[in-house]
Amino acid sequence: MATQFTPHPDRLLPADPTTREVARRLYDEVASLPIISPHGHVNPLLLLDNEPFGDPAELLITPDHYVTRMLFSGAGIDGDAVGRTKNGTPSDAEPREIWRRLAENWFRYHGTPVRYWMEHELAELFDVTETLGADNADAIYDQVSARLADDAFRPRALFDRFKIEVMATTDDPADDLAAHKALADDGSFSGRVLPTWRADRFTDPSGARWLPALDDLENAVDGADCRTYEGLLAAMRASRQHFIEHGATATDSGLPDAGSTPLEPAEAERIHAAGLNGTVTEAEAIAYRHNMLYRFAEMSVEDGLVMQLHPGVIRNHHRASFKAYGADVGCDFPDVASFTKPLEPLLNAFGTHPNLHLVLFTVDETVFSREVGPLAGFYPAVYAGVPWWFIDTPQAILRFRDAVTDSAGYYKGSGFIDDTRAFLSIPARHDMARRCDAHHLAQRVATHQITEDDATQVIKDLTTTIPTATFKL
Amino acid sequence: MATQFTPHPDRLLPADPTTREVARRLYDEVASLPIISPHGHVNPLLLLDNEPFGDPAELLITPDHYVTRMLFSGAGIDGDAVGRTKNGTPSDAEPREIWRRLAENWFRYHGTPVRYWMEHELAELFDVTETLGADNADAIYDQVSARLADDAFRPRALFDRFKIEVMATTDDPADDLAAHKALADDGSFSGRVLPTWRADRFTDPSGARWLPALDDLENAVDGADCRTYEGLLAAMRASRQHFIEHGATATDSGLPDAGSTPLEPAEAERIHAAGLNGTVTEAEAIAYRHNMLYRFAEMSVEDGLVMQLHPGVIRNHHRASFKAYGADVGCDFPDVASFTKPLEPLLNAFGTHPNLHLVLFTVDETVFSREVGPLAGFYPAVYAGVPWWFIDTPQAILRFRDAVTDSAGYYKGSGFIDDTRAFLSIPARHDMARRCDAHHLAQRVATHQITEDDATQVIKDLTTTIPTATFKL
Amino acid sequence: MATQFTPHPDRLLPADPTTREVARRLYDEVASLPIISPHGHVNPLLLLDNEPFGDPAELLITPDHYVTRMLFSGAGIDGDAVGRTKNGTPSDAEPREIWRRLAENWFRYHGTPVRYWMEHELAELFDVTETLGADNADAIYDQVSARLADDAFRPRALFDRFKIEVMATTDDPADDLAAHKALADDGSFSGRVLPTWRADRFTDPSGARWLPALDDLENAVDGADCRTYEGLLAAMRASRQHFIEHGATATDSGLPDAGSTPLEPAEAERIHAAGLNGTVTEAEAIAYRHNMLYRFAEMSVEDGLVMQLHPGVIRNHHRASFKAYGADVGCDFPDVASFTKPLEPLLNAFGTHPNLHLVLFTVDETVFSREVGPLAGFYPAVYAGVPWWFIDTPQAILRFRDAVTDSAGYYKGSGFIDDTRAFLSIPARHDMARRCDAHHLAQRVATHQITEDDATQVIKDLTTTIPTATFKL
Repeated sequence: MATQFTPHPDRLLPADPTTREVARRLYDEVASLPIISPHGHVNPLLLLDNEPFGDPAELLITPDHYVTRMLFSGAGIDGDAVGRTKNGTPSDAEPREIWRRLAENWFRYHGTPVRYWMEHELAELFDVTETLGADNADAIYDQVSARLADDAFRPRALFDRFKIEVMATTDDPADDLAAHKALADDGSFSGRVLPTWRADRFTDPSGARWLPALDDLENAVDGADCRTYEGLLAAMRASRQHFIEHGATATDSGLPDAGSTPLEPAEAERIHAAGLNGTVTEAEAIAYRHNMLYRFAEMSVEDGLVMQLHPGVIRNHHRASFKAYGADVGCDFPDVASFTKPLEPLLNAFGTHPNLHLVLFTVDETVFSREVGPLAGFYPAVYAGVPWWFIDTPQAILRFRDAVTDSAGYYKGSGFIDDTRAFLSIPARHDMARRCDAHHLAQRVATHQITEDDATQVIKDLTTTIPTATFKL
Repeated sequence: MATQFTPHPDRLLPADPTTREVARRLYDEVASLPIISPHGHVNPLLLLDNEPFGDPAELLITPDHYVTRMLFSGAGIDGDAVGRTKNGTPSDAEPREIWRRLAENWFRYHGTPVRYWMEHELAELFDVTETLGADNADAIYDQVSARLADDAFRPRALFDRFKIEVMATTDDPADDLAAHKALADDGSFSGRVLPTWRADRFTDPSGARWLPALDDLENAVDGADCRTYEGLLAAMRASRQHFIEHGATATDSGLPDAGSTPLEPAEAERIHAAGLNGTVTEAEAIAYRHNMLYRFAEMSVEDGLVMQLHPGVIRNHHRASFKAYGADVGCDFPDVASFTKPLEPLLNAFGTHPNLHLVLFTVDETVFSREVGPLAGFYPAVYAGVPWWFIDTPQAILRFRDAVTDSAGYYKGSGFIDDTRAFLSIPARHDMARRCDAHHLAQRVATHQITEDDATQVIKDLTTTIPTATFKL
Repeated sequence: MATQFTPHPDRLLPADPTTREVARRLYDEVASLPIISPHGHVNPLLLLDNEPFGDPAELLITPDHYVTRMLFSGAGIDGDAVGRTKNGTPSDAEPREIWRRLAENWFRYHGTPVRYWMEHELAELFDVTETLGADNADAIYDQVSARLADDAFRPRALFDRFKIEVMATTDDPADDLAAHKALADDGSFSGRVLPTWRADRFTDPSGARWLPALDDLENAVDGADCRTYEGLLAAMRASRQHFIEHGATATDSGLPDAGSTPLEPAEAERIHAAGLNGTVTEAEAIAYRHNMLYRFAEMSVEDGLVMQLHPGVIRNHHRASFKAYGADVGCDFPDVASFTKPLEPLLNAFGTHPNLHLVLFTVDETVFSREVGPLAGFYPAVYAGVPWWFIDTPQAILRFRDAVTDSAGYYKGSGFIDDTRAFLSIPARHDMARRCDAHHLAQRVATHQITEDDATQVIKDLTTTIPTATFKL
């Protein structure tokens, strides 16, 4: 029998009654503030085209590796069974069947943020009042489907309903940003959607993605010559200007590590040529990448783009899944992170420059109190990125606040980022972060480490001025 | 003056009254359920022989390095002073004197699980109602001694009283499992006691234990020829079948690291021969060991034995203690753990095979949210092992639940294991884990992240179906 | 408008009412006990000269890198703007202006221990009753200034008022300890101020500080010949005796890592000579340093001086700040710590010797449960140092207690150290630690893991007998 379920208004707030009262007041101050989303992976075409969303499975399951990975790990339900194209062959899984698989396995998500977010979405957006399960899977599927046909559920209507003040996407340097331009030029859409310059594939001259990247950038930038290192840098600078003209305020880099030792131009040029010839060694490729991270900081000092860095993820660990389904299907895993030593060259050169904002993200919590807090507490350029990906969870957010605030305070943190490709989950994610910040601050108020007035100012700033200032929005 | 002491019925449950109410209800659901103990070090002869336990010191102090290490570190009381054979010479320490040493130093154990478990045992099993101390040491010694003479305190009676549904031991591949067979054949004992195949000494061809291991296995397996690598693998497969025939469902491996790169058979054969000749290099020995871990997984895919892995312990750090007293005397220490990279070969080959259950244990908490949770949340074969050894403690269990559940949920955890050689502590350890799980879940209920009904199902499953399924019991 | 502010009497105690009641009782037991400060950086001349403190900025801001680093990171306020001598040129910043900078940026310190300590000082010592801010900066500056002119605010009067029972300073082996002698001989001052022998600059024969160190020690020790390694060791032994004669009970070492492999004397002699010639390689310098750490332990076994070790800090990361302002200006950062492997030679040689007390400090919390607790729980010589520097914070102290107590109990911890050069912050720091210990123990009492009577004894011991015994005071 299905169980009635409504998200509790005090969810995620502390259990102790006195502390909860404080937390509720703090949360209420920010609960309905607009959403600032400076880092995410929503496709701008979603808003440009403004087509109705597809079926519930396509919307909430198939593209979301946070969701599908646990169907795989817990019940062995493979990618094609959740609707993914496998080796070029589209899945023939029925959306309703995919939905049923999730419903049957919904117990496996107890205690996870995935379940938390989706319950929030089902309740708040689709007025679902029962816990999802095998017995009501079809009814809930039908209820969600019916709503999706409504114009109020088109992307732009939801963008307004979600009160998204600004949303950044993630884009390739060779992207012409036509979608962003069209959105900005569209008088019927007043939302602010900004591109973010992400040049990872340009950093590894030993990788399969490097040569195509050079080709694409040459095609994208007038007069570009990416056959030389200097030419590539020039084309990158031009591309960044193009991004800035289309509203970009930030770049993003996801690299194996944070090494940032610069190369002499001649040496970089030599390795670039070796990359073109296919003779680059592993050591050379790493040196090239470290130099490139240094150059990105140099460019940010020149053009003012905020620099986001999230090193230390091992990508596509399970090669069979990568071959069958491509990247971003759940088999990326955190590695040991390190910032203090690898960033020494970059921070010595640029760490006190007022133009540089360097936001450090990690999926390895051990650096919170050991590196991220202390670096953000000394270098004017460094900001402590909030927990992200695997650790964008209530408990990890509380651990982050407790570990980083000691040495960096609240005002050298990044403010929340949702980092999501799941458009519908954006309000749930920001709401979760606000609740956790209220929880954290209420604990500090209740133990008399900060006054409630000051905590109120802090939580407002965490939701508004802090992300705005960090990301130069 | 001695202090009255009774373990509090709400011990380890949260202090907040609302949360405690929930925790108490959750705990009550599982408090008296039978014990499933899939990983431990009790000697099966204990149950076969069913002799009365010796004196209190022999029972509770001398063989338990959890206890003796703190007498050494805090008060300099050496191994022979707690009854251990030193350099082959049996200790002449009087059991009552050993007991007095513990009593005098009992304050040193405040805040440790050792004290928690032993107070539970003294109160629940021996009806001790006072806190142990110098002034009542003799009286409590006498009280415990008197009970031990009672038939109700023989091992089999306690096995029944403890409601142990199944208990796994740890055994050498060359073991004939006669004790297990005799126990199974003994109509007067209905308990289920299963062997576990642990082949650590076969993995290091540079180690002093390797050649004797080959000899032992040759003697144990009909027609075995362990002079060759292929012969050794064949003998191992035969030994595993022998274990399976005697009820084994699992293997265990405690290795310096989790490296799992396979070797070509010819290369493995070559190193095997070098091992026999005593010419193996350190690098070759490591390569051989990594290959062997890979082969263990391969064998598990073939025969279905659950594979437990707990890498990253530096054994016998204090060589003088090792020389005087042997292994397992308290000077093993945790090292940095790593799974994601070293297990890449093994998981790419077997990580999605339905026959493989790979349970990852660690004494380095940094891998909880960084590696163990994410791996268990993607690979069907991977299970997150509960905290173990140094971190089998209330606080670490709560940290584990908070860190691992985010990315793996509850249903890819192993369920509790006690890992103990102290038979009498088994109920106290399982009870502690159940209380901590109730504590954790009650916090989630009180903050409205899970309903109490769902939490009730989860804690029942954590105590019953989860360990049963993980360990194929 | 300024806000009234008084430190709450229950600050840092748990929010839950039942637990808070217990915590308050525990805290009350130790709140007014004398201060034992076995590790710090106050200059003994401060007490010898007993001059009035200067202005509020000189007293509370300029020399305290905990404070100035966040003015720099948050508001770009550089060292000379807070009063520091830059490239040899004294700052011309007005003290009142410096104070205003802090006041304007006081919100940046929310949630940090720096704000916590300074609010304690302003309220308790200077009777400030308002939250510092831009609007009352001048008034509070004047109020603090006026007090500083009072004889009751001279260092010796405060030493008495703070109830400092014993305070250790940090001193160079070549120091003649004249200030300590004069203080001890001064009949008008009854305080106990002890030197601590810190020989870091003698350990690196490749460093710029090494040759001057040898010269200084030769000048300080009669008949010393530091041109040879054996001569250096002999001079060190003599220097340590000199320290012991002046009351020293401890040494301190802050080194890049905890490596402790000894060298044959001839090899050490050879590297020493290479150091004199300026031909020492990096590998030789490391080997020399590791040997020196081993020798320090050997000397401690001989002369009984407690050995403090805090490895793993990357010093002077931002070289421009170091060049302009020198060391200790906020750009030292924690690195990954490791004890178990690097200390293997030292602990095998001396780890069970009754003369050795080796206190391990860390700024990398990952070693708490993995290395520090287990090592202190086995080796009689090893003591777990409390959180220090970046992690001398309420949350980290609670994490430390929860992580280390499991395997080492309370009686193998060091007791609190304040490690401060800010004399006025000493009571605030010790008070914070006592509140956190009360918080921790009250949680254990409220969850029935320790009785309140036992917890009372533990917190008294943590404040008195434990540091006294650890540091042989």
